[in-house]
Amino acid sequence: MNKKQNAISPTREENFPEWYQQVVKAADLAENSVTRGCMVMKPWGYGIWENVQKNLDELLKETNHVNAYFPLLIPLSFLQKEADHVDGFATETAVVTHHRLEADENGKLIPAGKLEEPYVIRPTSETIIGDSFSRWVQSYRDLPLLINQWANVMRWEMRTRLFLRTSEFLWQEGHTVHATEKEAIDETFTILELYKTFVEEYLALPVISGTKTPDERFPGAVETYSIEAMMQDFKAVQAGTSHFLGQNFSKASNIKFQNEHGNEEFAWTTSWGVSTRLIGCMIMAHSDDDGLVLPPKIATQQVVIQPIYKGMEQRDKVLSFCQKLCKDIKATRFNDQKIRCIIDDRDMQGGAKTWDNIKKGYPIRIEVGMRDIDKNHLCIKQRDQSPKEKEFVDSTVFVETLPERLQSIQDNIYKKALSFQQENTKKIVSLDEFIDYFKNKNGGFAISPWCEAAIDNEVLKELKVTPRNIPFDQDTPNEKCIFTGKDASHYVIFAKAY
Amino acid sequence: MNKKQNAISPTREENFPEWYQQVVKAADLAENSVTRGCMVMKPWGYGIWENVQKNLDELLKETNHVNAYFPLLIPLSFLQKEADHVDGFATETAVVTHHRLEADENGKLIPAGKLEEPYVIRPTSETIIGDSFSRWVQSYRDLPLLINQWANVMRWEMRTRLFLRTSEFLWQEGHTVHATEKEAIDETFTILELYKTFVEEYLALPVISGTKTPDERFPGAVETYSIEAMMQDFKAVQAGTSHFLGQNFSKASNIKFQNEHGNEEFAWTTSWGVSTRLIGCMIMAHSDDDGLVLPPKIATQQVVIQPIYKGMEQRDKVLSFCQKLCKDIKATRFNDQKIRCIIDDRDMQGGAKTWDNIKKGYPIRIEVGMRDIDKNHLCIKQRDQSPKEKEFVDSTVFVETLPERLQSIQDNIYKKALSFQQENTKKIVSLDEFIDYFKNKNGGFAISPWCEAAIDNEVLKELKVTPRNIPFDQDTPNEKCIFTGKDASHYVIFAKAY
Repeated sequence: MNKKQNAISPTREENFPEWYQQVVKAADLAENSVTRGCMVMKPWGYGIWENVQKNLDELLKETNHVNAYFPLLIPLSFLQKEADHVDGFATETAVVTHHRLEADENGKLIPAGKLEEPYVIRPTSETIIGDSFSRWVQSYRDLPLLINQWANVMRWEMRTRLFLRTSEFLWQEGHTVHATEKEAIDETFTILELYKTFVEEYLALPVISGTKTPDERFPGAVETYSIEAMMQDFKAVQAGTSHFLGQNFSKASNIKFQNEHGNEEFAWTTSWGVSTRLIGCMIMAHSDDDGLVLPPKIATQQVVIQPIYKGMEQRDKVLSFCQKLCKDIKATRFNDQKIRCIIDDRDMQGGAKTWDNIKKGYPIRIEVGMRDIDKNHLCIKQRDQSPKEKEFVDSTVFVETLPERLQSIQDNIYKKALSFQQENTKKIVSLDEFIDYFKNKNGGFAISPWCEAAIDNEVLKELKVTPRNIPFDQDTPNEKCIFTGKDASHYVIFAKAY
Repeated sequence: MNKKQNAISPTREENFPEWYQQVVKAADLAENSVTRGCMVMKPWGYGIWENVQKNLDELLKETNHVNAYFPLLIPLSFLQKEADHVDGFATETAVVTHHRLEADENGKLIPAGKLEEPYVIRPTSETIIGDSFSRWVQSYRDLPLLINQWANVMRWEMRTRLFLRTSEFLWQEGHTVHATEKEAIDETFTILELYKTFVEEYLALPVISGTKTPDERFPGAVETYSIEAMMQDFKAVQAGTSHFLGQNFSKASNIKFQNEHGNEEFAWTTSWGVSTRLIGCMIMAHSDDDGLVLPPKIATQQVVIQPIYKGMEQRDKVLSFCQKLCKDIKATRFNDQKIRCIIDDRDMQGGAKTWDNIKKGYPIRIEVGMRDIDKNHLCIKQRDQSPKEKEFVDSTVFVETLPERLQSIQDNIYKKALSFQQENTKKIVSLDEFIDYFKNKNGGFAISPWCEAAIDNEVLKELKVTPRNIPFDQDTPNEKCIFTGKDASHYVIFAKAY
């Protein structure tokens, strides 16, 4: 091959947004549905979400969180309980106004049974969960209350993009109640750290954690903390958020408890979440011009075996070898879970099948033909390497060392993303350079001195750049805020963002 | 104790429906919410559902089903595609008519942004999934398509009861597409058998599988098959259903494929589901006048350790012993899963804590005091035995034999339910005896000769008895149908039902 032939057209270089759509399509991850702004998560895409759920859920349980389930529909009046919250959410929610359908004179179904009070489909559940918490929390003995919910939520979005922004999406939302301000703040940080660990170790995505600037806070929160990841088009994605809600929601929902001295106090609450957006984020960070690249820990399947044979006699021999191999692989554990492996015996031309599986992002692909069986070695291809590379490994050795191999692929994907993020993060202390970075260069993350008076700054609006967060553990800048010329209070990460 | 003191009041004997509510409340499983007809599944109740999900999902994956996710909202016109289906579901659905809220002149939120076409919240997803399937299925090579979805659904219910009948509930719904009628029918049976296995082996509930009579079919199905379980008040609960849909839905949704000869055909589809109703069903079948009884395989926690101590010195010693024990238990596997164990160190009086944990249905309860530590034995109580019984076991032996102990509890609960079902199932071939059985006696299941002309029979309506199903593998009756006097076509199970 003189000219590199890519499996995905256009390439990232040529047209990043369109490349993203084509990667999603080629890997058969998801599709748009007839329901406005909602996607269908196809098995290969939903499988990733299942692995996100399983692994994140385990981390949450290890830190004493328990799952529960609350109603999908929230009485309209509940949204009105917290003033900032209603402003933030009321403008984009699905409203249920009727509970029955009837046929009109032409037999066409029309809404009937009008409700006295309409409901909204939960855009987030602080208010409806707060209603339960006001009953569950009576005494300091009931605290802390550490609840998580896996659920679908809905926000009526005008411009949608598969996984990244859809009207309905799947997520987990944590809601906790504490006796003291300190405990609630500690919880908010514990969760942000847990998200960082999960996203880095499972999705192989390096992130920067920090505090959101006031204009980017969750509606009703005292503080919002986030982890921010960098995509290959240099834009940021907020990969997870954790909110310290102070007593705002406990006052709105009347969550009170009797303290050890018998006095009644309002409790302190937090909320936090990650969503199916993580999948979009992971696609844009790792995939290449040959399609999807999946970190082994959350890959729907980790290994695919492609049997190669001619005629029925070869077929039986090759397939039975593959079945034995697949069984051995599945009996091996990686990350304390059985390794996920399938045999791809679809009736397809070999080259087409190979490219289809490359585009699907299987971390490891094994081709098994008669010669391999005779030599008892396997031809191994890894998705983190060029499609041209291959390695022959004794089949027993392969199975025995598979956990280390999967971990090394996981590590490689992470390291590549980390280098990219580091290469495209720059400390910028002058406004001219800042403008040049985002206007003329493909600027990634800028770390710049900032002060609160810079909120609503016109330069940022023009550049379509936003403050991502105020990274933790930083010294107070000596420089002036590049937007206002006043003393800077912090360094802030700036970027274009999804 | 002369008089038996029960933890739950009223007893099953005194008032079964109220006993059920009190068991749910005492075990802290769920509560009613402010949203009409919707429940909140509290952690102890939701934990059971998580175990149902995990284990059933594994069985579905072993039989080559894969999970996907489809939109919550269905365009109203979709419901109209299949004539019987619309009749069955249109009268009880939540309708979304607006996508925004605005404040009126008094600042009160009102629905705005009226939708051109309203949506209904899915009562079941055949029609919206059919839309995707019409694109996914093109050739016989795409078949069979074996999809499952874990989701929330909503049916506007007038009379609700926690777990058993709620407006919103959680379930899995399987939807499959096949090239031939036979393959689709085979799938329907495979799933019913899988449900039977799951419900019997995991929920410890014996069930009778069979075909629904025509009047009890799913709206739009050619045949509906069910598994029916018996509650302790002798009533039946339909624990799971599997529907052979023929070509009805493939015609409504235009699911066509090219067969091996290049001709276009309509595909054959099935659908099937079980829901959070299973939890209600399990409570009513196994629990007793002391509260919840949980089969170990699906118990939220399988073992609770209650430390007993006085003063700080004892406390440290007892707690560290309990922590070591808990760690050893969690490192042991039962049913290929880590055993679920917690230490209950709540600040509560000992007797109150004991009764609270009995009411919660922990399969095994261990009390650990100083004397037990000195003797290195454990005081074991099992929920399938009387609260007065206890057993002292060497702690190493206990941990080593714990998987067998949990399996024996599982088996005991199943056997008890099976005896009850068998004792309360009677073959009845005369109408007088049938009426007497349900009117004067606490009739359970009646197996009676029946013919299709008995549908809409007045006697059944008066007795509030319904045909549950036509059990598989039966001989044609020699008797006449007890309702019509005509030749009977089958024996049918009759019962009062939830």
